[in-house]
Amino acid sequence: MRKPYTLFVPGPVEIPPRAIKELSKPLLYHREEKFSRLLSETINYLRLLFFTRGKVFILTASGTGAMEACVQNLVSRYDRTLVISYGVFGERWKELLWRYGAYVDEVAYPYGKSPPLAEIERKIRTNDEIKFIFTTLTETSTGMVANIKGIGEIAKREGKILVVDAICGLGADEFYMDKWNVDVVCGASQKALASPPGISFLAINEKAWEAVEKAKSPRFYFDLRNYERFLTNYQTPYTPAILTLYAFHYSLKRVLSQGVKKLWREHKERASLFRAQLGDVEYLPDSPSNALTVIKMPEGKESTKIIKEIKERYKILLSDGQKTLKGKIIRVGHMGNLKKAQLLKVAAILKRYL
Amino acid sequence: MRKPYTLFVPGPVEIPPRAIKELSKPLLYHREEKFSRLLSETINYLRLLFFTRGKVFILTASGTGAMEACVQNLVSRYDRTLVISYGVFGERWKELLWRYGAYVDEVAYPYGKSPPLAEIERKIRTNDEIKFIFTTLTETSTGMVANIKGIGEIAKREGKILVVDAICGLGADEFYMDKWNVDVVCGASQKALASPPGISFLAINEKAWEAVEKAKSPRFYFDLRNYERFLTNYQTPYTPAILTLYAFHYSLKRVLSQGVKKLWREHKERASLFRAQLGDVEYLPDSPSNALTVIKMPEGKESTKIIKEIKERYKILLSDGQKTLKGKIIRVGHMGNLKKAQLLKVAAILKRYL
Repeated sequence: MRKPYTLFVPGPVEIPPRAIKELSKPLLYHREEKFSRLLSETINYLRLLFFTRGKVFILTASGTGAMEACVQNLVSRYDRTLVISYGVFGERWKELLWRYGAYVDEVAYPYGKSPPLAEIERKIRTNDEIKFIFTTLTETSTGMVANIKGIGEIAKREGKILVVDAICGLGADEFYMDKWNVDVVCGASQKALASPPGISFLAINEKAWEAVEKAKSPRFYFDLRNYERFLTNYQTPYTPAILTLYAFHYSLKRVLSQGVKKLWREHKERASLFRAQLGDVEYLPDSPSNALTVIKMPEGKESTKIIKEIKERYKILLSDGQKTLKGKIIRVGHMGNLKKAQLLKVAAILKRYL
Repeated sequence: MRKPYTLFVPGPVEIPPRAIKELSKPLLYHREEKFSRLLSETINYLRLLFFTRGKVFILTASGTGAMEACVQNLVSRYDRTLVISYGVFGERWKELLWRYGAYVDEVAYPYGKSPPLAEIERKIRTNDEIKFIFTTLTETSTGMVANIKGIGEIAKREGKILVVDAICGLGADEFYMDKWNVDVVCGASQKALASPPGISFLAINEKAWEAVEKAKSPRFYFDLRNYERFLTNYQTPYTPAILTLYAFHYSLKRVLSQGVKKLWREHKERASLFRAQLGDVEYLPDSPSNALTVIKMPEGKESTKIIKEIKERYKILLSDGQKTLKGKIIRVGHMGNLKKAQLLKVAAILKRYL
């Protein structure tokens, strides 16, 4: 297959050739020691990536699977929850919680806008039955990064369990699980970690683990209590995506050898470089992520058409808006195996269309 | 990584080098036409593999994920179900159904023994509230293949929905979904289809789809109604395991170009050859599968020790028994990229230890 386009979407991303090579290693049996070593190393890398001492679990599933795992393992029917949402993926928390019969209160902000902490605090204080807060580190649909540190301080002060979807931003935007008082966090392989899609993961601290033991929602494939039992031998309860895990292990090792903070810096530099080159355009988010740039279309321009033209003419794939934002924004991912020169080229091309 | 051993376990299996090569193809974006074509072809191949005109769904999950998808999408709390079980994976259906609050009646037979159809029929007739029957085509824990055709006739006659876990046997043991009156069936990538683990799939007919629309169990990541909506454009609702899907697509294409029946014949030949070479040993199942051979240990021999020795001495990996069968049986898989000469060698080696 000829390469049809280079991916500048906010995930999945271009994978380094060295990580791809990992996929052709001999298949290990998942009940053998060699596999256990691989799994145990990967879990330790993830602990460093999240900056946590909590438990870490690796799932054979997309990121949404990890989000559902959070809900199933924490929440029971009729539980009171708060969702702080500012886009499509915040809304996914709400939808998930509804499916499991939770009551959902909400601080919902317009796409691209960050809610003030005071408003979040007021909402929590006026509804003291809330047990869990669900929110998003980096909203892939708008390119906004949230003030998780601020939300974590409130959650801690008010004694709530804070659950963060870090699927998009992890590795690109600053994130400290323990220091920022985040109790549960989930991520996926195909974003800033530049691995093939198919694996997601989550971390959970002692305080939230108590809720896992008590939660009454039906769960099996994502039942963390079962994963916990198998982890005593560094195994997974079911056949994992073994080859994908090789590439993921490799990518994490590469990142961790230089430190997570270097990865954050790299993404920050990419974002600055790209935006400087792009010049005078209007951005959607008030607090932009380093993982992606989201550009508002000028009056009379339609993003869907522009994206199609750029794909056909330059073999560069950008992302359209989702749902109500379709045609109105262009989303450009800065994650994965991309060179600065490529980013500058994309900015230069885009400029001509805006 | 040096190859630590060749896999003769009943999945995951050795993958053909050509399928591994597929994993290094450029990553397609899952919202693009080229990916849709890949997905649509894969679904059509699966339809041929299952011998069905039903709907087919591909999941990024292990086989157990597909089993849970069957339960979530069909069964509501307090539903009456029947599990026909003869091993660890039959018991998994029971466990899953309990988690979702279903009532489970059971025809449970000792490991390796096939229940007579008359007993299954009697059980169904004496409990006419049963709506769903759950069973297993090939029980990986015992090497037994079930009489699904016979069970299907009863299910049809009695107006029940029949759900079959074909994760292990599919492609190795005969199976006709529509002709045998199976309403729902699930499978996985890493068995007779010789693909990397990480993908599972299921097929469902019109009659069972009515139950999907009515079922009240909480579900999101595996919600088939959502997959159905996205399939109108041949997309998946969440980022799929794109690279793994390339290898899976390749393997299915290869199988289908020669016909499923040829694959069954190949596995039957492998099983006969292996068992002929093995000579006079005692087998666990009364109705052995073509996917694997399960040997009972003679008096005074312990399988765990023998498996360890064969692994260390010959770099050949065999499977021990699970749960109560640990130490008492050896399970040898015949699936995947294995040559006849290799199978004969394994049989010759095993003979010396028995």
